[in-house]
Amino acid sequence: MTTPFSITRRVEFGDTDMAGIMHFSNFFRFMEVAETDFLRARGLSVSWIEDGVKWGFPRVSVTCDYQKPAKFSDVLTIAVRLEKLGKKSVGYRFDFTNQRGEPIAVGRMTSVYCRGTNSDQIESLEIPARVREILEGQL
Amino acid sequence: MTTPFSITRRVEFGDTDMAGIMHFSNFFRFMEVAETDFLRARGLSVSWIEDGVKWGFPRVSVTCDYQKPAKFSDVLTIAVRLEKLGKKSVGYRFDFTNQRGEPIAVGRMTSVYCRGTNSDQIESLEIPARVREILEGQL
Amino acid sequence: MTTPFSITRRVEFGDTDMAGIMHFSNFFRFMEVAETDFLRARGLSVSWIEDGVKWGFPRVSVTCDYQKPAKFSDVLTIAVRLEKLGKKSVGYRFDFTNQRGEPIAVGRMTSVYCRGTNSDQIESLEIPARVREILEGQL
Amino acid sequence: MTTPFSITRRVEFGDTDMAGIMHFSNFFRFMEVAETDFLRARGLSVSWIEDGVKWGFPRVSVTCDYQKPAKFSDVLTIAVRLEKLGKKSVGYRFDFTNQRGEPIAVGRMTSVYCRGTNSDQIESLEIPARVREILEGQL
Repeated sequence: MTTPFSITRRVEFGDTDMAGIMHFSNFFRFMEVAETDFLRARGLSVSWIEDGVKWGFPRVSVTCDYQKPAKFSDVLTIAVRLEKLGKKSVGYRFDFTNQRGEPIAVGRMTSVYCRGTNSDQIESLEIPARVREILEGQL
Repeated sequence: MTTPFSITRRVEFGDTDMAGIMHFSNFFRFMEVAETDFLRARGLSVSWIEDGVKWGFPRVSVTCDYQKPAKFSDVLTIAVRLEKLGKKSVGYRFDFTNQRGEPIAVGRMTSVYCRGTNSDQIESLEIPARVREILEGQL
Repeated sequence: MTTPFSITRRVEFGDTDMAGIMHFSNFFRFMEVAETDFLRARGLSVSWIEDGVKWGFPRVSVTCDYQKPAKFSDVLTIAVRLEKLGKKSVGYRFDFTNQRGEPIAVGRMTSVYCRGTNSDQIESLEIPARVREILEGQL
Repeated sequence: MTTPFSITRRVEFGDTDMAGIMHFSNFFRFMEVAETDFLRARGLSVSWIEDGVKWGFPRVSVTCDYQKPAKFSDVLTIAVRLEKLGKKSVGYRFDFTNQRGEPIAVGRMTSVYCRGTNSDQIESLEIPARVREILEGQL
């Protein structure tokens, strides 16, 4: 088993709420940064335009379990693991730990490969071979 | 079965992302508004200070399944249902529909009754009888 | 002088920061809601697509002076006044007061009428007569 | 004249809006990160608790002038300059440039040295000598 891809990100003042801890919704913003960096490091993206068409990986399902509060100035490490690779979808797991190595939260995200349609809708598609190949190496 | 408590909230420009739809993390901000209003309508709150001690219902677990994008100016109805009432925890379900009645997303949230400690930590507690009584009527 | 257009909006838990007050950046989100509602009430918008082209009023300059903190659950009234109407630009003033009538903040925003170009840039344009006519009535 | 303190920060997907650019309010979040890092690098903070009292530098006035849109994945450099040091207040200037060296925006922020009072209010104070000494070296 390989060491998972990970990023670090500091909890900023504006990420906190009046309870003095990172607002629970901001964990999803941190997951998105980790997902984006994970894809970028592999030459992929979460959203792009090609031939005038919008492509991307919108999320269809997300979860987060909170174990310990994250506080202002904490530096969180977010490890990204590819857990599932379906025909059209990608499933990630995100493990948050703080600078003392304490587990903070575990998040999951399922994204589906999609393109924008002419009628301003989105439709899901099979992940193309080129993208699949890159992701398969991460399972 | 009673009609669930619900709120409406418009998708603002700043709630969208470059994909032209409400950013997935903002559904949790909308759930929080619905939860807060649900509690407020019953004389309760998600966070308060009493005798110098912080009390509240921090979240320990949240999920969201996205069915259809929410767009700028959409007016979402968020129906709140109390699904579970544990010794220390409360479980909500949130159903998002848009102004055309289309289902947009389903979210869930488990919050735990907590108080702040002297050492700046939080500890979970049994939900007091007064609060439990109010919530039981909503199951 | 006419009564200015105004909206009310509650300070939500997620709008606060660890200082226990509304995070200063969120005043701009509230101003945007007031601006959008002001335009919507006049049949206009801050962003739209027409004939495949993106049109809108991106901001070129904003300010906010904070007089008193806004707290969780406060219901803010935001009065919108059109202060300036240039060839290409619109200048708003926003007065924030809380539920006790106390002044909270004064914001200003200058937006410029723009369209997206083929090369994914934006260019400013003279405000068309139809839009100008509507706005002039508000000065 | 010394090289100003600066940080870099990437425009994340969740920082954008449906116009395809960084939402104007997020420039203030980026300024806050730059301000916080500036203070941290000097052993100071924007918010802390000492002897059970909340201390900090809440903002009393902010501005931002936008010159060019910031886009998803852009890496912005934010240079921080201390422009003013009053008896009770600190004035910063923030210059945003992108990875091509293009000027993106200029922001300003005035923060006032404050402490929380027993009655849950805040009051401004003269900046103590220790803090003033550190900041004076940056003018």
